[in-house]
Amino acid sequence: MTDDRSPSGATAGSPAPPPTTGRSFLDDAVAARGAVGFVAVGDRFDADLRYLTRFEGSEDDHAYVRTPDADVLCAPPGHVARATRQFDGRVASDRPGDHPGERAVAALDASIAGESEGTSESGTADSQTVLVPPSIPHDAAVYLERAGYELRSTTAVADARATKADGELEAIRAVQRAAVGGVRRAERVLAAAERDQSGGLRLDDGALTAERLRRVVNAELARCGVGDAGNTVVVAGSTGDGGTETEPIATDEPVRIDVAPRGPHGYHGFRSRTVVVDSDGGWERRAYVAVEAALEAALDEVESGADADDVRREADAELAAFGFDPTGGERGSAEGDSDPSETGHGVGLSRRERPFLRASETLEVGSVLAVAPGLTDSEHGSVRLGDLVVVTEAGYELLGDGTRSFTPRA
Amino acid sequence: MTDDRSPSGATAGSPAPPPTTGRSFLDDAVAARGAVGFVAVGDRFDADLRYLTRFEGSEDDHAYVRTPDADVLCAPPGHVARATRQFDGRVASDRPGDHPGERAVAALDASIAGESEGTSESGTADSQTVLVPPSIPHDAAVYLERAGYELRSTTAVADARATKADGELEAIRAVQRAAVGGVRRAERVLAAAERDQSGGLRLDDGALTAERLRRVVNAELARCGVGDAGNTVVVAGSTGDGGTETEPIATDEPVRIDVAPRGPHGYHGFRSRTVVVDSDGGWERRAYVAVEAALEAALDEVESGADADDVRREADAELAAFGFDPTGGERGSAEGDSDPSETGHGVGLSRRERPFLRASETLEVGSVLAVAPGLTDSEHGSVRLGDLVVVTEAGYELLGDGTRSFTPRA
Repeated sequence: MTDDRSPSGATAGSPAPPPTTGRSFLDDAVAARGAVGFVAVGDRFDADLRYLTRFEGSEDDHAYVRTPDADVLCAPPGHVARATRQFDGRVASDRPGDHPGERAVAALDASIAGESEGTSESGTADSQTVLVPPSIPHDAAVYLERAGYELRSTTAVADARATKADGELEAIRAVQRAAVGGVRRAERVLAAAERDQSGGLRLDDGALTAERLRRVVNAELARCGVGDAGNTVVVAGSTGDGGTETEPIATDEPVRIDVAPRGPHGYHGFRSRTVVVDSDGGWERRAYVAVEAALEAALDEVESGADADDVRREADAELAAFGFDPTGGERGSAEGDSDPSETGHGVGLSRRERPFLRASETLEVGSVLAVAPGLTDSEHGSVRLGDLVVVTEAGYELLGDGTRSFTPRA
Repeated sequence: MTDDRSPSGATAGSPAPPPTTGRSFLDDAVAARGAVGFVAVGDRFDADLRYLTRFEGSEDDHAYVRTPDADVLCAPPGHVARATRQFDGRVASDRPGDHPGERAVAALDASIAGESEGTSESGTADSQTVLVPPSIPHDAAVYLERAGYELRSTTAVADARATKADGELEAIRAVQRAAVGGVRRAERVLAAAERDQSGGLRLDDGALTAERLRRVVNAELARCGVGDAGNTVVVAGSTGDGGTETEPIATDEPVRIDVAPRGPHGYHGFRSRTVVVDSDGGWERRAYVAVEAALEAALDEVESGADADDVRREADAELAAFGFDPTGGERGSAEGDSDPSETGHGVGLSRRERPFLRASETLEVGSVLAVAPGLTDSEHGSVRLGDLVVVTEAGYELLGDGTRSFTPRA
């Protein structure tokens, strides 16, 4: 039963408690806009709500309401005990059939009624403005508007999420250990695979396909206690979409492995590596050297205060210096969920979040960034190298080890 | 390397193509409401958009627009090639920075302009009503409203999703094979585990905890090519939240295993089993017998035309007949994502969707239903048995085998 072991070092021991990130920044946003409160509504896939409440959520929409006097999670029926355990504010139970928009209105009304009875010192009691995230569900927004509230959208939560607190970094470090382990596992399997007479890889008397290697990676992630979250991509050569091909991986083609697993408190990791079992020194070798240089150049730009777009520009410039076209359409877009035409992006409760590598974004201490330049060629395949870093006072720190190898290591 | 094999039979061979479910039902809904079209906006977690377009999506919101003359997916930059491969209508590329609401407006405007130039025979050209799902993001709704469109919400997509087409059933059967394999794996590991002197289970010289067993299940699901989707729950005894405990599973406590993995085209499976390694015939044995009877009674109610709430009522009546309180608060709500107080629910692109087991719902041919009664006791733990079925002309058909055993089988 040696295949059911947990690998040593990977998320071993007791899991850390969920990050505590606070919600007082919402009070500042509410005060600055002269609003009466903040409302968010969403389901378990809503990263803003997860950030604010740490409630794992359900398929049913739930609401979070904050005013100077209230800090309430309106939990769906059947989830109140769990919500109470996970959320450190007050939990109100929805009645079955209640819409979370109705519940949010009730919580807002109650809070404002309470405030007006007291000796309110703020001048906001007359205002009926409520801040909401831009993508609040329209039906919930309509409930709020019909109750007399005027909605103003706020990016306060996305802004707060763009730099990570220590507890968040700890969660990301934990899932990143698994990400490193998952990719390393693929490398080992490739190194140990046998080859058939036509240059295809074999494992246990069967063809080693990209899909089979993807399953190997995902099983390793599961053993480490994290979920692949549907984000694992294995591309071998130019075979396109990894999920549909049944051909064995060829010894001379680049094998690109991207992972972005999701760990216990909902935080993602990120890692991208490319290896070639037996390269003939052609396109894949030249591309690898260029992408490696691009990764180093991009990482050199990562520091507090840097323009995020410079990270992308430096990577592109390096690829161009090696004679590649860094803007050649959708590089590698044929491979599942990821968009390898992006040189990088923030990582956290969403697989892909702020900061994005564009001119309007500035890197700050606590920004967590996937830096992952790549090249795709319609004939030869795809090469990508990506690391996860956190911006520090001194520059940046790698999350997970930065080792890489063109030839898979045993 | 025998631990990297794919188990025989589980999603082996070439994956089936994505289900083709058609979108003409939207034209009926649009015509019936005198609207000019239908618009949906969402990200990769939006099951309605997945159903309509089969596009796997991205973190960025994208829009789908349908009018009598248009059938357009507005894909985020960098995802156009993949969207074109996955969606069988027309794909329009968003410009970076465009809001999907803007793109939807542009597609609607273009379609209506084209229609008014032709010899329109319909009387709808004057209407500016647009149908949208109730939870369309508010910012997208505001773009549509500012462009002069009046929004009316429609449940047409949820209604269509509530009964499954053959291709959808094929996808569910595939993921369900993996669900069965994952639970079976846990059973085998429990059967093979050794016991320490104090009645705790051990595996490979380490304690076999609920968390470790959860990882075993998830690794097996990954080997079968499906994702656990964060839905695997293993509860041993009354230790509560499976993820935080480090105690070995005791031989005499019930071990409940719930899985709801997600397969290649986004469809979910469902299975719940409970086993006891070495029962002393106490609460867990009585609860098992009652839950087994409740499952059979509930399944007996499943047929086309049945009131969905009767399925729940029959299960509760059977539990009551065995002397248990079926309405005792949040039964087992301490265990991760699932809500075992629910006797059942529909399963499809969402883990939990229509039909729900309530009075307003009627089962139809093609309804796919998780039927899973359970009992939780604060002292002894949790017992649940759940199968996945599809309603047929003749009654129902089990998806995945219906075998179950109180004692784990080797």
